[in-house]
Amino acid sequence: MPAIRNLALLGFGNVGRTFVDLLERKRGVLREQYGIEFRLTGVATRRLGWIANPHGLDSAALLRGEFPAPGTQLKDVRDWIAAARAEVVFETTSLNRHEGQPAVDHIRAALECGADAISANKGPVVFAYQELRDLARARGKRFLFESAVMDGVPIFSTFAETVPAVEVRGFRGILNSTTNLVLEQMEAGATLQQAVRKAQDLGVAETDPSNDLDGWDATFKTVAVSNVIMGGRLRPDEVHREGIGALTGEQVRTARDSGHAYKLVCEARRLQGAIVASVAPERLPLTDPLAWVNGISSAINFETDMFPGLVLTELDGGLDATAYGLLADFIRASRS
Amino acid sequence: MPAIRNLALLGFGNVGRTFVDLLERKRGVLREQYGIEFRLTGVATRRLGWIANPHGLDSAALLRGEFPAPGTQLKDVRDWIAAARAEVVFETTSLNRHEGQPAVDHIRAALECGADAISANKGPVVFAYQELRDLARARGKRFLFESAVMDGVPIFSTFAETVPAVEVRGFRGILNSTTNLVLEQMEAGATLQQAVRKAQDLGVAETDPSNDLDGWDATFKTVAVSNVIMGGRLRPDEVHREGIGALTGEQVRTARDSGHAYKLVCEARRLQGAIVASVAPERLPLTDPLAWVNGISSAINFETDMFPGLVLTELDGGLDATAYGLLADFIRASRS
Repeated sequence: MPAIRNLALLGFGNVGRTFVDLLERKRGVLREQYGIEFRLTGVATRRLGWIANPHGLDSAALLRGEFPAPGTQLKDVRDWIAAARAEVVFETTSLNRHEGQPAVDHIRAALECGADAISANKGPVVFAYQELRDLARARGKRFLFESAVMDGVPIFSTFAETVPAVEVRGFRGILNSTTNLVLEQMEAGATLQQAVRKAQDLGVAETDPSNDLDGWDATFKTVAVSNVIMGGRLRPDEVHREGIGALTGEQVRTARDSGHAYKLVCEARRLQGAIVASVAPERLPLTDPLAWVNGISSAINFETDMFPGLVLTELDGGLDATAYGLLADFIRASRS
Repeated sequence: MPAIRNLALLGFGNVGRTFVDLLERKRGVLREQYGIEFRLTGVATRRLGWIANPHGLDSAALLRGEFPAPGTQLKDVRDWIAAARAEVVFETTSLNRHEGQPAVDHIRAALECGADAISANKGPVVFAYQELRDLARARGKRFLFESAVMDGVPIFSTFAETVPAVEVRGFRGILNSTTNLVLEQMEAGATLQQAVRKAQDLGVAETDPSNDLDGWDATFKTVAVSNVIMGGRLRPDEVHREGIGALTGEQVRTARDSGHAYKLVCEARRLQGAIVASVAPERLPLTDPLAWVNGISSAINFETDMFPGLVLTELDGGLDATAYGLLADFIRASRS
């Protein structure tokens, strides 16, 4: 009998709930193919408080919205991790744009308390990657975050595992779904405002879409990929950032009529020892492999010393794929 | 000091030579990042015979075409593996279309003699995957073949390592460079014959191009991916196979004028428990992600229960990437 791993979730929004549902759907596969047994022993959100039960919580009840009372004696994340006897902590709270808090503190606490830390949140990677990576190594634990960029598409693990010993010279990608969907709507005739409303109706854009439209989300992803895969130490304010807010529908349609597509392109490149990165709308010829990444699809094209172009593309990304990234990280953490 | 691994090469054509050159270029990285030391102790080709020296051969001399005398007492591959004290055998001979021999026997011998076996050759995967995989497991050795499809792009290792616990429902891909380049030339105005000559001049098509034009190479790749990643037991003659020989330049150009591209599409799909596979030219709308895979690029789009479409694309493939696949497999085999 394999040991049962205790899992605790920070954040229980769409990603957290989809993940719990996926864990249950994959329970048999985890047991049979990977020898992994698990139980959910902690859930915490700002609204619900610190809920912990080391004997296991009822996933189905949580998914129905039925939560046990929080532990009244639990004052902070460390109390909660201890009470849940958590061995793996999943961080899925929403991103704080300026410093990545409280997610950075949560991950630090998890690792210091002896748990693996798995994040779908870009914040800890963008603001504290080196520190948290080193802390994880020192404690013999894992800090994994495959879902932070392109849902669960194996960007980070490809370079950590399946493409060893390459030198990554740079990358170009389309990493923000909202702007990509908005630009596609504008090509089809919409104004920027109409396109944003459409993206909101589809649940892709947030109520305040500025984080996407101004290129912040794309910038964070660019920083995450640069720092993890290219060994950079970029800060978000060092990325040349330009959003799509100044583009008009007419510009986008005129480009399309002449065989070009506007895309918000994330780019990073090694230049004389440093990494230079940018996020900006580009008018791409339709022969560019990124020109055909439409709607809520995303893609990243890596230039390495071994491959002139190695592209990973996700067609029609979504919550399932994000939750899957957490699951894949959980399997990785349980293997090592 | 890490142990020194003894490497032996079966075949010393373009792939083998590029690989030996790459090994030397990456010697420092292998030592420093992976703790791997190696020496080349065996090379064998039909023309040169069985060359072995357990103290190490001179890679630079081999690359200059200076070969030591073959061992006169070495009668077969097993004698040679023993004389070379080979711990990893690399198989890069050319494919025998009908039974995958002698590569299958070589891999079997390597595994039975206690060596890891790494192949750039589709033959052993297409004709003997299950047997060789089981043999490798029984002996605690590795049978790896990342270079057999899409050069060193991590197709097989992605599903073995970075995308665990998914159910692959099917795939569609463009996996043969010759036909893809030929179709592109035909779009640009060439006849089939002119396009083939151009592909031969570029060193992409072989002197006898029928293996590519008739869809055999694509069929073997389809079988390899189906059997390894989807757990199939397909034989090449079970794949519905149609080459591009019947297409005229006019057809291809008329399609392009109406917004379509002809591509030789490899496809497999799970259907009522069985895997149904085909290789055939298709007239794709330019909105299809495969329609823009041009020239010597290749791509494969997997449909899984977690990703509606996960696409791996290699832009401008080539010998370096093939040799890299062998190197990556060598690192994988040395880790486990």
